[in-house]
This record gives sequence, C-alpha cells and structure tokens, in this order.
Amino acid sequence: MRRVLLDRSVLLMRGLKGDTAAIGNVCPHRFASLSEGRFERDLVECPYHGLRFDMSGQCVHNPHGDGRITERARVASYPLVERHGALWIWLGDIMAADPARIPDLCLLETTDPTDRAPGYLLTKANYQLLSDNILDLSHADFIHPATLGTGGEIAGTKARARLEGDIVTVEWAFTGKGMAMERSLRDGAEVDSRFEVTWYPAGVMILRNDVGPVGEGEPAAKRAGVHIMTPETSRTTHYFFENADAGRRKKLALALDVFEREDGVVLEEVQRNMGDSDFWDMEPLILSSDSGAILARRVLQRLIRRERARSATASHPPQKARLSQPF
Amino acid sequence: MRRVLLDRSVLLMRGLKGDTAAIGNVCPHRFASLSEGRFERDLVECPYHGLRFDMSGQCVHNPHGDGRITERARVASYPLVERHGALWIWLGDIMAADPARIPDLCLLETTDPTDRAPGYLLTKANYQLLSDNILDLSHADFIHPATLGTGGEIAGTKARARLEGDIVTVEWAFTGKGMAMERSLRDGAEVDSRFEVTWYPAGVMILRNDVGPVGEGEPAAKRAGVHIMTPETSRTTHYFFENADAGRRKKLALALDVFEREDGVVLEEVQRNMGDSDFWDMEPLILSSDSGAILARRVLQRLIRRERARSATASHPPQKARLSQPF
Amino acid sequence: MRRVLLDRSVLLMRGLKGDTAAIGNVCPHRFASLSEGRFERDLVECPYHGLRFDMSGQCVHNPHGDGRITERARVASYPLVERHGALWIWLGDIMAADPARIPDLCLLETTDPTDRAPGYLLTKANYQLLSDNILDLSHADFIHPATLGTGGEIAGTKARARLEGDIVTVEWAFTGKGMAMERSLRDGAEVDSRFEVTWYPAGVMILRNDVGPVGEGEPAAKRAGVHIMTPETSRTTHYFFENADAGRRKKLALALDVFEREDGVVLEEVQRNMGDSDFWDMEPLILSSDSGAILARRVLQRLIRRERARSATASHPPQKARLSQPF
Repeated sequence: MRRVLLDRSVLLMRGLKGDTAAIGNVCPHRFASLSEGRFERDLVECPYHGLRFDMSGQCVHNPHGDGRITERARVASYPLVERHGALWIWLGDIMAADPARIPDLCLLETTDPTDRAPGYLLTKANYQLLSDNILDLSHADFIHPATLGTGGEIAGTKARARLEGDIVTVEWAFTGKGMAMERSLRDGAEVDSRFEVTWYPAGVMILRNDVGPVGEGEPAAKRAGVHIMTPETSRTTHYFFENADAGRRKKLALALDVFEREDGVVLEEVQRNMGDSDFWDMEPLILSSDSGAILARRVLQRLIRRERARSATASHPPQKARLSQPF
Repeated sequence: MRRVLLDRSVLLMRGLKGDTAAIGNVCPHRFASLSEGRFERDLVECPYHGLRFDMSGQCVHNPHGDGRITERARVASYPLVERHGALWIWLGDIMAADPARIPDLCLLETTDPTDRAPGYLLTKANYQLLSDNILDLSHADFIHPATLGTGGEIAGTKARARLEGDIVTVEWAFTGKGMAMERSLRDGAEVDSRFEVTWYPAGVMILRNDVGPVGEGEPAAKRAGVHIMTPETSRTTHYFFENADAGRRKKLALALDVFEREDGVVLEEVQRNMGDSDFWDMEPLILSSDSGAILARRVLQRLIRRERARSATASHPPQKARLSQPF
Repeated sequence: MRRVLLDRSVLLMRGLKGDTAAIGNVCPHRFASLSEGRFERDLVECPYHGLRFDMSGQCVHNPHGDGRITERARVASYPLVERHGALWIWLGDIMAADPARIPDLCLLETTDPTDRAPGYLLTKANYQLLSDNILDLSHADFIHPATLGTGGEIAGTKARARLEGDIVTVEWAFTGKGMAMERSLRDGAEVDSRFEVTWYPAGVMILRNDVGPVGEGEPAAKRAGVHIMTPETSRTTHYFFENADAGRRKKLALALDVFEREDGVVLEEVQRNMGDSDFWDMEPLILSSDSGAILARRVLQRLIRRERARSATASHPPQKARLSQPF
C-alpha cells in the first residue's frame, strides 16, 4: 500500500508473519512506483524491470544479465511501529526515532476489537489547521449547531489550557443544556458537561466528554475519541479518527458526515484563503478560545527548530523538519 | 455575496434599509470566508467561530469567554457607490476614492426598469484584452460574419480615435449594407452607419450604433449598449453588459450567445497564447484599427504609474496598482 | 492543423498542389491562433481580425484601413520535409537544418500503402523516457508478461549495444520459447530469437525481430516496426508508431492497447515520480540492460551541447536546444 507522507511516496507492507515495514516507494533504477508491482513472499517486484526488494528496502533479485546487485541497489527504510491498531512511522533522522514518544492510546482497546470502526478522510488543508479545529471546540456551536453544538455554552465558557512537557491539555466545564442532539433525551434538563482535549506532537489528540447530573461530580456518561492528523503535503492531511466507546459504528457515520459536510468545507476554504502564507505572517486575531491551539503551535515550532538545529550540528544537509507522525 | 476583485475576496452586502457595503471577506481570526456565514439584521456571522461584523467591517460581537472586542477585530471596508443599477467599488488608497470618476450611464435608465436585462460572463482573459475587443469593432467582420459583421465594411473604414482627458472615443462612419443580420430587412439597400465606442478607465465602454437612410444625416435607428470589464484576477474578468434600448431581453440572448461562442473562445485562446507575458513585451504588430485600443492602454498605463507614485510618496508599501473598478 | 512541438504552437498546412509547410501559429497582431481560422487557396486567415498569411508565413492581406502590410507582418517559417509518410520539421537555427539527417525509413514503404496503419498516442512523459522504454526491451518481460514478454528470456540475455556516428544499435539474441503470445502456436518448442533496436537522434527507432528454427541461422519470420518520439513539452510526448510488415492493422490494435494500458501507465507514473528533476541528478541505478538507452542519452547530450555552443558563437540569444524532430 502506498501513502504520500510529508511529500514523500512511501510503501507500506505487511509480511507473511504479520510483520510490517515502510520503505521508499520509488525504484532507484528507473523511478517506477514499487506499489504498482507484485508483492509476494515478503518481496516487492518493480513493475517496470523486475528488480525485487525485501522489506528492509534491499534489492535481492536482479533478473538482468549476470544478475549482479550493487550496494546502491536499495531504497530507504523507515522506522515503523504497529501499536493501538495504527502504524507509526518516523521520516526524520533515523537516530532520533523514539517509539516512547508514541502517545498512549490504550483507550481504543477497551472494547471488543470487532466493534472498532476507524474513520479516514483526506482533507485539503494543512494538518495544523485540522488540529486547531479540535483544540478549539467552541467551533461546534457555530459549525455544528444541530448536532455537536451547545447553543453557545462551550463558546461562552473560558477554555483552560495547560502544558506538561510537550503535551497540551485544554478543558471546558460548564452547567447547561449540553449538545443539541442530546437535548430531547433529557427533556431540556440541565447537566454538568466537561470537554477535554489532550494534544501530543505532531498531531494526535484524545477528546474526552463527560456528562452527569448537576453538582454530583461523578459523570453518568464518559466518552472519548482519538483524532490523528498526518501531513500528506503542506496543504493536505490524512485525518484518522475513532471513537473509543461502545456503539462506535453508529458514531462513525455521524462523525464522517459532520466533518465532511461541515468542518471540512470550512477548513478547506480557510486553506484556500491562506494560500501558501504562514499562519503567523497573517497576524491572526487571537481569542480566548485559541489558548490550546496556540500552545500546541508553539510546542511544534520549538520541536521543529530543535530538530533542524540537530540536523545542522550533525552536518546533515538542511532539510524540511519532520516529526513523529502516525498514519 | 462574495466576489473576487483584483485577486481580493470581497463581501458585498445589502442592509435592511437597502443600503450597500463592501468589506473584506476573510475573517481576521481564523481566515474563514464570511460569505459562507449567516447575514442577519445587517450583521454577518463568521461560520467558523461566530464573530459578528457590521457593514463597516467592525467586529461587534465575540461569543467567546468574556466577549472582549479588541481594536484589531475588524476587516477592511471599501468605498462603494450604487449608481446606474451597478455597484462601484474602489480598492485603492481610500483617500483617492472619487465617485465623480464613475462614468455617466444614465442611458441605461431611459427605459422601463422592469425591462432591464443585464448580462454577465466570467471570461478567462485579462480585462484589457476584453476592452481591446470592444474598442476595435473591426473584429465583428471576422468573428461574427453572420450577425454583427458587415462583410468587411467596418474593417475597411479607417477608425477615428480621439482622447479627451482620460476618455477615449473611437468612431467608424460609412455607407454600405451594414450588419449581416439586418440586411434581409432592407432587401440589401445601402444605409449610412455610424459606430462609436467611448471608453472610461479602467474598463467601462458605451457602444453606440446609428443607422439611417443614405445622406440624410438624421439616423432612423439609434442604439446603445454598455460593456464593463472588471478584473477578477490578472487572467480572468467579470464581463458585465447591457443594451440601453427597447427589446433588451431578446438582444441579451443574442449578445450572450455571440460573445460566449465567438469572442470568448478567441479571447481565451489569446490569453493562453500570451501566458503571463506582458502585452508590449510581445511586440504586437499595430494595425490602423488598433488606434482606440492603444490610446486606452496608454491612459491606463499613465494612471497606474501615477497611482504607484502617489503610494510611494505616501510611504505606503509598494502594491499592485488599483483603479476605480465597477463590478 | 495545429501541433505543439517543443513548447511552440506550430501550424501545419497542405496546399492545393499537395505541398506542405509549417509556420508559427500565433498571429503577430493580437496573438490569436491561426489554426482556428479558415484555410483557403493556400492562405490562412486569422480568426480575430482577418489578416491572411501565405504558406511561407508572410502576411499578404490586411483588410484594415488602407491595407498596408509592414515588413514585420509575418510569422516564423520552419523547414519541413515530407518523407516516409511523415512530416519532418526543424525548429532550431535554420542554417543547421539538414534533411540528410532524417533516418531512412524505407521499410515502411515495402507493403501496399492502403494497408499502412500508423498509431499515435499523446503520452504524459518526457520523450527520452519513451525512447528508454524501447531501447531496453527487457521491460517486456515484466510489463507485458502475457503478450510481448518472454518470461525472462530477454531480461536474462546480455544486451549488446554499439555506437556508429550518432546512431545507437542494441541487440538481444537467444534461444528459448520466445514471446508469450506466440508460444501456443509452436506447442512450446524453442526457437532462435533476435531483437534489434536502432536509434537515431533525437527519438526515432526501428525495432526488428527475427524468429527462426534453432541453429538454422536464417529466420523464418522477420518483423519490423518504427517508433518516433517527438517532444510536445518537456513532460509530454507525441508518440508515433507503425509496423512495417503485413497485417499491420491487426498489430496496430494490439500495440495501442498494450502501450496505453501497460507502458503508458508506468511511464506517466515515472514522470510524476521524477517531477521536474533531471534524470542524472536523480542518480539512477544502472543495470546491464540500460546500455543502449545510456548510449542514446549521451549522444543526445553531446548534440544538445554542440547546438548550444553553435548558437552562442553565432551571437544568438541562448535558447532551449532543439534537435531534428519528426512529428
């Protein structure tokens, strides 16, 4: 399977024993895409002239002339870890790959695996714009008035954002009628609502929502979902999401519909309005609801600078900064 | 209503009392398009996070946290005048906006307003190429041989062009069989024909056509139409046009059909052949029929230079020159 | 008829006496495409303002005003030769045009002309990538396993490439079961096969294939075909091809189908993977099967350098190198 990640064409493979690997997808001979060739017995064959590569990216078969294989006959191999039902790839300096930085998403494994229903959308907007969207839930009051919106209750609540290490948490707690789509179930009675988004670099978020009787402290319903933004290019994003609680399949349909028809339309319009301009160069007006998103953008900026500095020190050619990215 | 004018996204509004206004269409907070939000009671609400702006571009409602509104919470406001059934906008230095420079198009108001039938086409060619087309009517003999063309009579007549202030007038007067589509009505008899195009910067033209018995001086039929070219981008143009005399609706259908199938096809091909090259850099061959178009291009060049110089003097950052543009 | 050749829009004409000519397709007056106008009695009329040009590119009729024709009223004229059922154009320095460099394709004229069946495909890949494809026939074993492929026999045979002047010949000779689509006809018996590709600059190839009983020397079947690659732009190619032996029409259908569904798909993917990168800058891995293609690329590089040097000496403005190109 081929995926473009950070502008690079990457080939993802699953071997006979279930092991996974990620290698460069462009054949070093005549630049055909390996993903268009056959994958058999853990070897991929280039569709153009039949060179075969193993899952480490090494050429192991040359059907031409005397069949010699030179040292250069290989493609890049990328560190890859399978965890929480996702593959996590590192496209930066191989020495800096650190699986310990993969966020803990065990909450996805608490229900029957056959019930898991992950969603995916390719969105024509930068991955930071998609993270901003989740980190400022007040948008729901305006973009999703009939479903996830609270009629201004989230927007009117001051968001509390905090930073621990490289992790940003933003929280809204209020008493009110709650989400529009649940109001009829309660005959309009008020509840205590709490929303919390935890963001991990470069674009993984856990969104928790607790609802309970007013003043009781202990929520009657706890819900959670995971949102992962992986850059395809600087202007397009692989958006992966999954609810973590029971009834996932039904919720998936709602999430797909709501995001595609509502958030996606706005975010792609924002990207068109921004063009290739830098976010900060456009001097955005900052509102109180932006606190979480701004913290996350600053963490990312710091990590990108640090990685660039490290590359420079190591006498590497300067390159586009890359951060741990799931896909 | 949103329109892109001179590469800028502009929001046009009509208030409860019928007043009109034009403001920047991109929200200063997260760059969503205000035109995609609700417009109620003279306020537009951003579809993403619900900021509301009045018709002067000022933010008057912030639904987030304590609702504070800072001085920067506003979008640009553009001078706008409604006249002759059109809205006239000025996107340049606000001090230089001058409604007196809007051309007099009273001729559009001489017939029953319910009969008015304005035409509109978005054309993939620079606005000056569209003005050139009207300013050199000889093209009709070749592009519209079966309708507006005169079988070479206009082309064979020397165009007389003159400049008064910033206004260019070009005129053709000849005795002959006239326009192809009217010949059968006269059984082929000759008539005196007069065509006159008056051009106002940056792209407004009145086209008059008088036809009368040979040698009588007083025309039996007087017709007029207005053609307005407003740049959307450097390679696309909003083309507005309207006939000024009775029977407009029928004529509109002909004009739409003729322009779209004939002029538009040629002009978009010219734009493709030119690419992003400057007109003068391509060293065009000049014919006698070009006199009006060349005069108009020189006026425009002078006005653009003057406006650039003024901006420079005023210590403004250098910017793309902008001229009074209707839309 | 209009063709874009080496990024230039060219008008091809056939006169009343059957003579052919190639001139610039963009009118020097207002840059309309002459190909969209009428062509009558060996004159082409510009569709926009009616200037008429003869087959040498000279304007001979100006319907405007006094009808004067200035010296500049002309478009470029390109040397053109009709030979072997094709038109051969030279877009470079006119003094360097040399019809003697047109390859001898008399083999196309050995059968009944009514049986000739030339094929054409516009392919979204650089012309050198298309030549590389023919010059390394080993690709057939992988791209065309069910038809032209030999199940690894060509790939396993060392290609012998040689250079004579500017002409490259590459040859494969082996004993085996031959092409997949012919095996059933021989009940799987082995044959002696010989494939030979002769390449002429900038992209003309003759592909010969002889098959005969093992060890007899004299082939029972001799086949040949011509493949011509003419650049449209740096990333698109006019691909012309024709079989030279009997039964051409049937073979044409196979060739069109095989190229479009198999080679074309791979080559366009290669072009996308390369983007605008230079072939050598991408440091391709070289296999033994590349010998012919590499020789041809070196000849081309040498000819382009020589033509550039000649242009520089002649005090011409530096321009994109152009080589004799059929179309």
